[in-house]
Amino acid sequence: MRAQQDTLSRTFGALSDPTRRAILARLTRGPATVTELAAPFDISGPAISRHLRVLERARLIARGRDAQWRPCRLDAGPLREVAEWTAEYRRFWEKSFDRLDEYLDGLQAKRREAASKEKGHARARKPR
Amino acid sequence: MRAQQDTLSRTFGALSDPTRRAILARLTRGPATVTELAAPFDISGPAISRHLRVLERARLIARGRDAQWRPCRLDAGPLREVAEWTAEYRRFWEKSFDRLDEYLDGLQAKRREAASKEKGHARARKPR
Repeated sequence: MRAQQDTLSRTFGALSDPTRRAILARLTRGPATVTELAAPFDISGPAISRHLRVLERARLIARGRDAQWRPCRLDAGPLREVAEWTAEYRRFWEKSFDRLDEYLDGLQAKRREAASKEKGHARARKPR
Repeated sequence: MRAQQDTLSRTFGALSDPTRRAILARLTRGPATVTELAAPFDISGPAISRHLRVLERARLIARGRDAQWRPCRLDAGPLREVAEWTAEYRRFWEKSFDRLDEYLDGLQAKRREAASKEKGHARARKPR
């Protein structure tokens, strides 16, 4: 249906998998071969290759030309676009956290009130 | 295979569609009913409902309790996690842009050099 997937959709799609995000995290420490990238995961070679193809299509990784090793390296460029898109929503999540703060403040006030009442009862019950 | 999708994967998955991102953008202007949300898109009611379900599952929108209208509102909370995840890669995309800058500087220097040579030739060809 979709003639060509837009860049941002492709980036978000590539990031929607924990293994692919773990591969990117590993590549922040430097380039790595497919074997090195596969090592920490309990998944097959072909499955890793599929993940790498998704990351490569999203231009989040680039692969060397050496036919045998084809080391992968991180290309964080598309993440800049993600950061810019997300930044537009900052004021909204700050608002939602403000609401959470208000809610928690409310809870705390109620708890304090309940605790002081409890204390009052305890004092009242205390034999003189 | 995946018992429970992690929050970040669910958020990225929900964001990997341009219609869903357009719905979120619309909701930054305030809550809206399904009909209002569907209006700008040339897609069916059920398709919009599916998109809203994905956004709701990712907790990016919340829906009112009014059975008939169920207005949707933005909940940007999960986008904070996206911003935090992305921020870890900032120094890498800055590096990749530095490389691009270097490349473009190199191109420009070459172009200037070529242009000045061209000028030199032109001057040489100029009849005295």
